[in-house]
Amino acid sequence: MDLNKLLKAKSLAVVGASEKPGFGGDTCRNILEYRKDLSRVYFVNPGREMVLGRKCYKSLSEIDDEVELVIICTSQATVCGLLREAKTKGCGGAVVFASGYSETGDEKGKAAEEELKSLAKELDIAVLGPNCGGFNNYVDDVISFAFPVEKRDRKGSIGFISQSGQFCINLMDSSEMRFSYAISIGNGKIVTLEDYLDFLVEDEHTKVIAVYMEGVQDAERFASCLRKAAQKKKPVIIQKGGKSEKGGKIAASHTGALAGSDRAYDAVFDKFGVIRADDMQEMMSTALLLSTLKNLPEKAAFASMNISGGETAICADMGSTFGINYPDFEESTLTKLKSMLPSFCTPGNPLDMTAALCYDSDLYAEGLKVVMDDPNIEMVLIGITIQLVVADPTIYNIYHGVKKVVDQGYKKPIAILPFIEGTRNRDVAEKFREIGVPILPSPKYAFSALSHLSNYIGYDSSKRELSLAVPKKATAGKKRALSEVKSKQMLKENGISLDLGVIVTSREDALEKAKHFTYPVVMKIESDDILHKSDVGGVILNIKSEDEIGKAYDTILENVKSRMPEAKINGILMQNMMPQGTELILGVKRDAQFGPMLLAGLGGVFVEVFGDSSLYPIPLNKNEAYEMLKSLKSYKMLTGYRGTPPRDIDAVVEMMVAISEFARKNKDRLCELDINPLFVYGEGAGVGVADALVVLEE
Amino acid sequence: MDLNKLLKAKSLAVVGASEKPGFGGDTCRNILEYRKDLSRVYFVNPGREMVLGRKCYKSLSEIDDEVELVIICTSQATVCGLLREAKTKGCGGAVVFASGYSETGDEKGKAAEEELKSLAKELDIAVLGPNCGGFNNYVDDVISFAFPVEKRDRKGSIGFISQSGQFCINLMDSSEMRFSYAISIGNGKIVTLEDYLDFLVEDEHTKVIAVYMEGVQDAERFASCLRKAAQKKKPVIIQKGGKSEKGGKIAASHTGALAGSDRAYDAVFDKFGVIRADDMQEMMSTALLLSTLKNLPEKAAFASMNISGGETAICADMGSTFGINYPDFEESTLTKLKSMLPSFCTPGNPLDMTAALCYDSDLYAEGLKVVMDDPNIEMVLIGITIQLVVADPTIYNIYHGVKKVVDQGYKKPIAILPFIEGTRNRDVAEKFREIGVPILPSPKYAFSALSHLSNYIGYDSSKRELSLAVPKKATAGKKRALSEVKSKQMLKENGISLDLGVIVTSREDALEKAKHFTYPVVMKIESDDILHKSDVGGVILNIKSEDEIGKAYDTILENVKSRMPEAKINGILMQNMMPQGTELILGVKRDAQFGPMLLAGLGGVFVEVFGDSSLYPIPLNKNEAYEMLKSLKSYKMLTGYRGTPPRDIDAVVEMMVAISEFARKNKDRLCELDINPLFVYGEGAGVGVADALVVLEE
Repeated sequence: MDLNKLLKAKSLAVVGASEKPGFGGDTCRNILEYRKDLSRVYFVNPGREMVLGRKCYKSLSEIDDEVELVIICTSQATVCGLLREAKTKGCGGAVVFASGYSETGDEKGKAAEEELKSLAKELDIAVLGPNCGGFNNYVDDVISFAFPVEKRDRKGSIGFISQSGQFCINLMDSSEMRFSYAISIGNGKIVTLEDYLDFLVEDEHTKVIAVYMEGVQDAERFASCLRKAAQKKKPVIIQKGGKSEKGGKIAASHTGALAGSDRAYDAVFDKFGVIRADDMQEMMSTALLLSTLKNLPEKAAFASMNISGGETAICADMGSTFGINYPDFEESTLTKLKSMLPSFCTPGNPLDMTAALCYDSDLYAEGLKVVMDDPNIEMVLIGITIQLVVADPTIYNIYHGVKKVVDQGYKKPIAILPFIEGTRNRDVAEKFREIGVPILPSPKYAFSALSHLSNYIGYDSSKRELSLAVPKKATAGKKRALSEVKSKQMLKENGISLDLGVIVTSREDALEKAKHFTYPVVMKIESDDILHKSDVGGVILNIKSEDEIGKAYDTILENVKSRMPEAKINGILMQNMMPQGTELILGVKRDAQFGPMLLAGLGGVFVEVFGDSSLYPIPLNKNEAYEMLKSLKSYKMLTGYRGTPPRDIDAVVEMMVAISEFARKNKDRLCELDINPLFVYGEGAGVGVADALVVLEE
Repeated sequence: MDLNKLLKAKSLAVVGASEKPGFGGDTCRNILEYRKDLSRVYFVNPGREMVLGRKCYKSLSEIDDEVELVIICTSQATVCGLLREAKTKGCGGAVVFASGYSETGDEKGKAAEEELKSLAKELDIAVLGPNCGGFNNYVDDVISFAFPVEKRDRKGSIGFISQSGQFCINLMDSSEMRFSYAISIGNGKIVTLEDYLDFLVEDEHTKVIAVYMEGVQDAERFASCLRKAAQKKKPVIIQKGGKSEKGGKIAASHTGALAGSDRAYDAVFDKFGVIRADDMQEMMSTALLLSTLKNLPEKAAFASMNISGGETAICADMGSTFGINYPDFEESTLTKLKSMLPSFCTPGNPLDMTAALCYDSDLYAEGLKVVMDDPNIEMVLIGITIQLVVADPTIYNIYHGVKKVVDQGYKKPIAILPFIEGTRNRDVAEKFREIGVPILPSPKYAFSALSHLSNYIGYDSSKRELSLAVPKKATAGKKRALSEVKSKQMLKENGISLDLGVIVTSREDALEKAKHFTYPVVMKIESDDILHKSDVGGVILNIKSEDEIGKAYDTILENVKSRMPEAKINGILMQNMMPQGTELILGVKRDAQFGPMLLAGLGGVFVEVFGDSSLYPIPLNKNEAYEMLKSLKSYKMLTGYRGTPPRDIDAVVEMMVAISEFARKNKDRLCELDINPLFVYGEGAGVGVADALVVLEE
């Protein structure tokens, strides 16, 4: 399938063309409104001679031209026949609005979708939908969007892919949005989300990609698109529905998407530098910020310039909440500002300029230049609320001041930061946009967008291992937990250094082997059937003599035999007792879609009471492992807390990378790995695996 | 001073009346636009015969009427003379726009403000400002606001007090805002924030109070206003600038406000049920939600109704993030919905209705009634984005559907929840407002407002001790730390039960007194000069015999004499060693404005690594103490963690109330109290004060 024949079709036909409201009528109206060259546009409806003043064909076959794209506005029953007919006209792309496919959740719908899918494959037609809202390619004026929206220029550089048609409408309704492509993908099982994503990553007209998704189809392909985008430095902003439990259920019933673990999505997005938005407004305003700026700032170092003290205080407070970096101005900047501003001003960053410079655009430009010249500053935020009706001429003075500075060749990016919501006066907004100055939304969204921008600038794809260990298929084989010794053996064979101990099978054996140990030792029952050894009295710690070894051997066997008589016992594990260290938990959880994920956290209350753990996709490199640890709130327990010397973080990182490698190699059969606890000792003294559990899928 | 003569003046004069832009011109234009009855409005300017088509007087004295309110648009130098002249005309209120007062931060400005303040007192004139933007009383059309805003009806029931003039402009710019009063208080040192607050709490036309503040003048008065509002159930929404360190400095230099500890403000707002907003938009939309609804829901139980799956998923996800309660529908509701919606819908709450019912307002009304009839639901959120230009007729069908339901007498409140920002179509917005249906802002603000609403409904003033222990004055006397024994003695005298132990002053004394102890005991150096006893080797724990007592006595004295030879030693404290319990920290911190605050948290890493502590104003009752503990993330450590039986929470609560009472009685001299650790034992076994420190101000 060639997506160009769908999204960049040179000729198109609307089947079911009509003047009435509905798919047929609204699509025709949209095409007539937005497509300049109508020479290769054909309306088809057997019941009409003319539609909206244009010739209407009885059938596709009647058209004396190749029809690259067919837009099918008629019911489900007609779709397959129309595709076959379209194929005879050289068709390579189709839009199918009809519903009644897999989204119904019933067998009939699923079968209809399978049939459509195989026909599309057979005919080599790239099908958008079914159950979709169409798409608009604003670059080449290929229009197929089915819903009525206000007539307005929307051409820009944001490529939007949406599993919700309504969200396309929402974004088109916003007067600020500018698209390269807007694609409502519907069920998206024929041409998939990943296909569109790949197209937009490659598309030179698309500067920023925005996605509303409820789930992925092909995790490997998804990852490879994200890798390509990261390497090209093309921002991808995703809003994934189904973060919460209720939301996940709704997303699943909406497009039949397998929501997957939301935390796994977060982890994957983190690895690939994807910006995750909480809602449409956040997605849209972040996309607009990134696409409107002519160049992104070199680093996240903002100046905030405002005309009132209250607004300046909000910028400081919100900036602090959202982690926005406002560096101090240089002394020379402060001196210059002092000379320009009223005597009662105390310049700083954020800056309360008062309204003093706003009555004259030259004065404003001079003030702005002083701030932009400061070497600590990379981007300027101008606080001013622009509403629909502009009653205060200040805004025009600021605009002209900004324009003067931009025209003089100042390159540091600038954005306008309003304090309340509102459709901004379109004339003013357009003027600012033309000079590369985006108008941000109200503060919570504005500061979210600025925080995303800061993180995006800071993201360095070269420091990440940009792949996933996606399992071949989500098998549902039988799970088998290995005993401690077998788990440890498997880890040791995979290069993870640990003390295996020895298994003894009789009292005498135990006493004999004890000669090679230094006390204290620990003894544990070794059985494939016993996962919670302490619970059955199967563990005795701190054994200090030969005498105690004999007693421990007997006690453990007695305990286990009385409490789990049916367990098959391999023997008793004898080990040197490890010195106590800072307790860490390292584990691997398998995500059904994205494969193994590494979990790290400090033991005890940190994970259990505060949920302070970090999850990250495997494979990972040392840098990523180190960042995982640093992201823990309890990280300070490792760097020296209450007089404890710093812990051997390098050794932890090496262990994490070794676990990652082990899990990557075993991605198709490793269900779970738990190292709990891992003792971490002082710098240079390494780590010790105190207990380990491997769960495999047969 | 009588605020009615300022805010509800029956006659008024503008001094410095003009047609030019600026204070004089814009105020005159605003009055002419917004005040219906101009019969007792006088313009004064010695240089003009007419202003904006109205007679202009040479001076106030020339006016042949009482002038209750004088609006002074002229410079600082003229103000005092004009006030004296105005007094001869019966003036009781004045607006002073001029700047150059305490906000300059210099001595001259402060002196000018002091002079103005005493003159206002002498003449008994209620002065708004100086350095203010004026006020509008929309109830009685008393207009003095100085800045140009779009002409539009703004009359409503929100009383707004602002320490920033710019924020008044911002809120007036919003097409949705409706005020009873909007007051830009400027420096606010003559008539104060507390005066205006008191006025609006009493004002029957004001349903909701919104405040932008940077600091309080009179904490006692502030608290009494908040108490009155809480008891009247009149919502107070406050945005306090200066939450962050940088913001605090900006607020201080803006209006010279003493920002105080931001955490203390949070605590005071919590006690009095004040809604705290993060920014103007959040304040405005929460105020609009509370003022537009004809009645508030009985409890926080929301239904979310949407026309698309993606939007429904957002409502679920954002609801989960903001703690919004969506109860499950009754079975009968689900059955009814199923019969009305397309077969592929799976009804639930949040509800994806699809667009099926939106094509017909009767159908929509039926669907809405089914949801409103559900006994688990108290309020309905209708998800639909309304933009400036309405391209989709669905919105009108929904409006007519909602109106039918409201007209039929359905009382449960309804709000409209849009998914992206935008000035809403004014006609549609007005129609919804008329039937008591507010249009919320974009989701982050909408869900913040709904979360505030939920908390507000849940707030019960009868369960709170609605007062503060504001100290007489913020003295800066010398601080004096008491020794452990003296600290404990003071607490014991104040009804806090603890084991004092005995002080021994010789080895023999120690051995003699030891006879009355059961081992193990603990011995600690007792000296006013030594706060960190362990650091100087001044503590020996777990002493188990007479022999060890003698040795411990000598060791402690040797340690202290060698490490702190200058310390004056009162003796050595001998106590029974307390059994180990769950460690709590209880403390009192004094806030310079609001007085003593109780601090509670679990010991060790909980407070130190996770900052998990709770701060609440003293005095507090048992209910408040209990809520403080419940607000800790680590609260579960007290209710039974990892098999530990539940701790004696009642005993902790009693101790907290006793400490509160102690701090209240000593509010003028208690700087700090630390009980660290407090051991908490199992249920019924009480608590034990292991160490205590009292710091007093002389």
